[in-house]
Amino acid sequence: MNNYQQYPSRLLEDAVQQFSRLPGIGRKTALRLVLHLLRQDTDDVERLAQSITVMKRNVKHCRVCHNISDSDVCPICSDSRRDSHTVCVVENVQDVMAVEHTQQFHGLYHVLGGVISPMDGISPGNLEIQSLVDRVAQDDVSEVILALSPTMEGDTTNFYIYRRLSSFTNLRVTVIARGISVGDELEYTDEVTLGRSILNRMPFDSK
Amino acid sequence: MNNYQQYPSRLLEDAVQQFSRLPGIGRKTALRLVLHLLRQDTDDVERLAQSITVMKRNVKHCRVCHNISDSDVCPICSDSRRDSHTVCVVENVQDVMAVEHTQQFHGLYHVLGGVISPMDGISPGNLEIQSLVDRVAQDDVSEVILALSPTMEGDTTNFYIYRRLSSFTNLRVTVIARGISVGDELEYTDEVTLGRSILNRMPFDSK
Repeated sequence: MNNYQQYPSRLLEDAVQQFSRLPGIGRKTALRLVLHLLRQDTDDVERLAQSITVMKRNVKHCRVCHNISDSDVCPICSDSRRDSHTVCVVENVQDVMAVEHTQQFHGLYHVLGGVISPMDGISPGNLEIQSLVDRVAQDDVSEVILALSPTMEGDTTNFYIYRRLSSFTNLRVTVIARGISVGDELEYTDEVTLGRSILNRMPFDSK
Repeated sequence: MNNYQQYPSRLLEDAVQQFSRLPGIGRKTALRLVLHLLRQDTDDVERLAQSITVMKRNVKHCRVCHNISDSDVCPICSDSRRDSHTVCVVENVQDVMAVEHTQQFHGLYHVLGGVISPMDGISPGNLEIQSLVDRVAQDDVSEVILALSPTMEGDTTNFYIYRRLSSFTNLRVTVIARGISVGDELEYTDEVTLGRSILNRMPFDSK
């Protein structure tokens, strides 16, 4: 009989449609967000709209580390207090933020933009691997730390990068420690992790 | 030592900030959404931004039922095939969509815009209750169906509306049936619902 089962307004429907294209946002959540926006001030809504267009138009990628940046070279790469001889290779922007958050690393980063994953059609050519090799060749890099997630794809990427860097004789290539997480129960740790943590045991340090 | 623990770009941070003001979206989710947008085409991002500003600027509320609408009178209120003598009172836009979805109601709606809730500072004056009374007085309404959620606030609002409409002698005021939901196990139904469903038992209908 009727066609009103969907949205009472085409403008509303358009906005819901656009929101529901975002990852993890279904049509119900999109509707809830859009109705929330309708109740806000026009200024607030325009501020949201503008923040994403301005960002999309103006955000750059650092030409050294490929992290997101407002300038050609990001604040980390241009900070002379940081150790430019050590480069930490990570998958994405969030991983840079996670490592920075630990306050344990004072070198520079190299953001690959993903990991090698033939299933998803991501080959080394789609990632910032060649630029990493160039960077090691040109700059005075003494250590590359591989800080990718311990997944099949991460391991594959680690191995690929390791091979690509093997010709640099004075370069140390390291990988972040794997073992049981702080607070984990030994009993419930998976056997691969536990096995590796025994093989890679370290001298006890009482500090 | 450093200030990069947060966001590598102020533009990115602005967008994350704006997104995280949406209900149910924390800063981590906001970052994930914003980084997703950064990977999309500029056209797609601008389409999203535009859909919300255009909606916010142009969407109207139907002057009869107060539902969201693209025109002064919404498609439901202006549909002559619908029964204009029966008005279903609901809390919000989603509830109109939910009732429409059942395909069991062919009358018109009245969207209150909330329910009476002293705790949240929502009094009858904040809701479209006076306009409902005016509508019943002016139009030829024979039945008002109260279709609010069976909560304390919903019940209070039902009772308030019922009293406001009690002077109309030829008006039937009904409330949607409450009882155990289709598919529920009797054993696990709460006692208030089960008690009411026994009190409000109906003749068996084999249809």
